[in-house]
Amino acid sequence: MTDLVAEAAALDAADPLAHKRNDFDLDDSVAYFDGNSLGAPPKHVAGRVAAVVREEWGGRLIRSWSEGWWEAPERVGGRIAPLVGAAPGQVVVADSTSVNLFKALVAATRLNPGRDEILVDADTFPTDGYIADEAARLTGCTVRRVVAEDLPDEVSERTAVALVNHVDYVTGRVHDMAALTGALHGAGALALWDLCHSVGALPVELDATGVDLAVGCTYKFLNGGPGAPAFLYVATKWLTRFEQPLAGWAGDRDPSAMRGAYEAHAGIARGRAGTPDILSLLALDAALDVWDGVDRGLLREKGLALGDFFFRCADELLDGATIATPRGEDRGHQISVIDDDAAKTMAALIDRGVIGDFRPPNVLRFGLAPLYTTYGEVLRAVTTLGELAEG
Amino acid sequence: MTDLVAEAAALDAADPLAHKRNDFDLDDSVAYFDGNSLGAPPKHVAGRVAAVVREEWGGRLIRSWSEGWWEAPERVGGRIAPLVGAAPGQVVVADSTSVNLFKALVAATRLNPGRDEILVDADTFPTDGYIADEAARLTGCTVRRVVAEDLPDEVSERTAVALVNHVDYVTGRVHDMAALTGALHGAGALALWDLCHSVGALPVELDATGVDLAVGCTYKFLNGGPGAPAFLYVATKWLTRFEQPLAGWAGDRDPSAMRGAYEAHAGIARGRAGTPDILSLLALDAALDVWDGVDRGLLREKGLALGDFFFRCADELLDGATIATPRGEDRGHQISVIDDDAAKTMAALIDRGVIGDFRPPNVLRFGLAPLYTTYGEVLRAVTTLGELAEG
Repeated sequence: MTDLVAEAAALDAADPLAHKRNDFDLDDSVAYFDGNSLGAPPKHVAGRVAAVVREEWGGRLIRSWSEGWWEAPERVGGRIAPLVGAAPGQVVVADSTSVNLFKALVAATRLNPGRDEILVDADTFPTDGYIADEAARLTGCTVRRVVAEDLPDEVSERTAVALVNHVDYVTGRVHDMAALTGALHGAGALALWDLCHSVGALPVELDATGVDLAVGCTYKFLNGGPGAPAFLYVATKWLTRFEQPLAGWAGDRDPSAMRGAYEAHAGIARGRAGTPDILSLLALDAALDVWDGVDRGLLREKGLALGDFFFRCADELLDGATIATPRGEDRGHQISVIDDDAAKTMAALIDRGVIGDFRPPNVLRFGLAPLYTTYGEVLRAVTTLGELAEG
Repeated sequence: MTDLVAEAAALDAADPLAHKRNDFDLDDSVAYFDGNSLGAPPKHVAGRVAAVVREEWGGRLIRSWSEGWWEAPERVGGRIAPLVGAAPGQVVVADSTSVNLFKALVAATRLNPGRDEILVDADTFPTDGYIADEAARLTGCTVRRVVAEDLPDEVSERTAVALVNHVDYVTGRVHDMAALTGALHGAGALALWDLCHSVGALPVELDATGVDLAVGCTYKFLNGGPGAPAFLYVATKWLTRFEQPLAGWAGDRDPSAMRGAYEAHAGIARGRAGTPDILSLLALDAALDVWDGVDRGLLREKGLALGDFFFRCADELLDGATIATPRGEDRGHQISVIDDDAAKTMAALIDRGVIGDFRPPNVLRFGLAPLYTTYGEVLRAVTTLGELAEG
């Protein structure tokens, strides 16, 4: 244990990203491991949002719509693009992940006509399957739930699109984006990826892996704030044919003309539905400042190193604990510990200042946010978990 | 003119709502007439949003989801309910108006099966028609655009639902909610009302008039902020059968259970799609404080009186101007002046500190917000318009 304390201290001292923690409003009395559910607030966000209310909304009133607000969804999307390996013009911030999934799924069936099946990663976050069921109901498709690794065998000439989660939200396992996308394309199906648990945590290469469509949320590792607007990626090759079903006025080619018939915007703005939600969008915009100058390689390196250290502490301090997260590099930035009494254990951890979460039926989740999680906190989490196990 | 100055001063002095202007962050150097597009910010909103970021997001982190955030959409909806004449449990705040229209239209076709037509108020805001076209495309319906007054003649046994705007966004004319809803019901069709330009401006009686479904935005007369989340009303009689197509996890009966199959929440929460956008939602929540203790009768009285005074000033100061807004009580809180050079005229008005907006092809719009518009400002607007007309 003494060794682990020294080791944690040495790792923190040598961490090239350690200074980023100062950008966040985090109380050192708690060890926060839920950045994979709700990222911590960057310190400057509160002031920035108040300034938007006072100066842009109050000071400029309606004029702000033509002074930057209207184009904010594409501009902020453009700031997320490098974090998901997307060239400009393919990412827009709007609505929630669920709503963007619906847009993408329905649009995918239109991009791939004559096919009547939607495959859904069987282990994905529930909303993905719920929304797929609704998209199928309206497009005459059927949904089949298939575990991600079986997709290459299950995809067929009937499959219009497959929806896959990049990082499993329960186990933290990463799915191989390049290989699965290639297998789907081999059968003529489109690949739609859910990046909620990977964006801001590990490198994502949408363009390089040929992904067709993707969605992701911004309130986990992107720290955009509770329920912050999500993003939608449409690969350039599909953009002019992307016909999404929530074709509201904000996606029209010329909204101010107030024409009777919709004509989709030529660019990624066609992914919008209604009026952009400016306060949340500009809070996210502010939150994205913390990424300026961050080396994405270091990010992944630290995320894995934090996980490695978690495993090392667990091996020493947790007798026989089962960890669902893979030990190799096929994991995101989260460690999932199996516990038959997960809800109660997590409540006890939170009482002791170690804040993670649990997922039914039996998983304790510890998110590792490379921008602010420390090795010392990892040791604290595992130590506390060990103390609780001993009663 | 001297008479009008004295008259405006007397009207302002006698205005029982005059004190409400102090609740708003408005610079007296401008006369703001665009509260029908973007309401002015209540003074306390900036501080409240900053506190939500610092104390609820930062201070409590993930714990805030179980300390009031998760239920906020229904709670804030419950605050809007009295403004639209709705008993509790029928209003939820979520997503944008466009997205809520899509939910309501698709759900309406399911509530009224065997009918294949959607009627849309031909003069409604464009997004209503765009979204109706998409809802029709996915449900096998056809859309027919009909001016509101012709709905009683045009509705038939084919009509599943008609979407009508309560106040015409161009002319400011109010449509008769009770009469049109009754006529639609007479033919077995459902009535879906768009309240964007009436909520917070004039009395709305959804329950009393038997309206089936309604949507509305919160960033106009409700002052919720730019692009603030919209609301959805589902009459109690339809609630348990309301099956909306954006059935994401936030509308599930037990989201934390993370089940594979969606089961709609028993209450109005089934109108939700994805994770609630908390920063914008709580900004709206704060903004709604300005309605506390406001007599809705006074609100309507003042809105009409402001309009009457606009007409009186126009009669005296604008030689032969054409005003599209009805002079009777069949108008909302907006005056629309016809001007062949509307874009240029509005730019010149804004240069002179009179901020309204224009709508193609030829309409100058002046929104009258009873909580902060003064009679003196009305006189200033008309005077400035007259000066511009004289060159």
